[in-house]
Amino acid sequence: MKISARNNLKGKITKITKGATTSHVLIDVNGATITASITNESVEELKLKEGMAAYAIVKASDVMVGVEH
Amino acid sequence: MKISARNNLKGKITKITKGATTSHVLIDVNGATITASITNESVEELKLKEGMAAYAIVKASDVMVGVEH
Amino acid sequence: MKISARNNLKGKITKITKGATTSHVLIDVNGATITASITNESVEELKLKEGMAAYAIVKASDVMVGVEH
Amino acid sequence: MKISARNNLKGKITKITKGATTSHVLIDVNGATITASITNESVEELKLKEGMAAYAIVKASDVMVGVEH
Amino acid sequence: MKISARNNLKGKITKITKGATTSHVLIDVNGATITASITNESVEELKLKEGMAAYAIVKASDVMVGVEH
Amino acid sequence: MKISARNNLKGKITKITKGATTSHVLIDVNGATITASITNESVEELKLKEGMAAYAIVKASDVMVGVEH
Repeated sequence: MKISARNNLKGKITKITKGATTSHVLIDVNGATITASITNESVEELKLKEGMAAYAIVKASDVMVGVEH
Repeated sequence: MKISARNNLKGKITKITKGATTSHVLIDVNGATITASITNESVEELKLKEGMAAYAIVKASDVMVGVEH
Repeated sequence: MKISARNNLKGKITKITKGATTSHVLIDVNGATITASITNESVEELKLKEGMAAYAIVKASDVMVGVEH
Repeated sequence: MKISARNNLKGKITKITKGATTSHVLIDVNGATITASITNESVEELKLKEGMAAYAIVKASDVMVGVEH
Repeated sequence: MKISARNNLKGKITKITKGATTSHVLIDVNGATITASITNESVEELKLKEGMAAYAIVKASDVMVGVEH
Repeated sequence: MKISARNNLKGKITKITKGATTSHVLIDVNGATITASITNESVEELKLKEGMAAYAIVKASDVMVGVEH
């Protein structure tokens, strides 16, 4: 499957924290840590594990721009 | 202002494409290109220009995880 | 690529309207029309055309629930 | 109330899983299962129950398009 | 229709700017201006006009928190 | 940091409910209650407390418009 989301950052899963319904998956991308908040079901279905290669994927309309002033 | 969005990726603006109401801002983050779709008004108010340092900011609940199979 | 987004609805593209930066892609899913607002770049890269099979993909945290009262 | 969200899929609630703050509501829409991740408060206020008719509602800017390759 | 989105702010539409596919609707809520970026189709279907009463509606998972430091 | 999100509503935190991974932060803005669903980590890092001044921040593409009929 190819998807329209513009942003795909390749990295490695460094930590998975499971909650009651929602998990936080931390992905190291070139030294920056990306946090993804996804369902527990997706963590299980994709068999996500710490140490695995993974992509952080974000739709362009969900990206904001910040500048220091 | 400090905000709760977990993901802040520092980079440099490489291209700004203005539409009728919506602009696309490309930010180079360590060689990866991030696309942000934001309002024209924000491009003007933040005085975004190609070559400027900028952050791509994303809320954790807007990040998905992908794996190759 | 497999992604964590929980919702994948298979259908057929019935209409693509290109704007200056943003396109609207209509997908017929079992008689219901889904509208996706995505970047023009994605329409081009995925070579989307009317009549093509395609999936409407949505992250669980972007789905609301409505009830009639 | 009429809202601007373009996508309204009518179905039936098949399962509700309550977490500490976040619930997952599964809605069967013509045989496809849609997962909505919403607050526990909304589940209570809308009195959502398994078996109830309900709509899965999604803003167009939150829909991505996928194609098989 | 009642929907699960937690945030409904009542106000008055002060300005509508139509783009090629996307409109910006400004809503004055107690003196604060809220900008909604929605499809042109929704502006037409809801017959939105400047001066009309309207609600700005936001899902809780799309709200961030900021603090001054 | 200045960010591109168009909507910043100043208010006061009235309640914080922590879940296993996700917190709900209620912000009173001129008598209206805004619910933000954010990570527990952000609540800790920003040292959010009931009674604190805070902003509810929302990207324009996450705002829908509703009208009574």
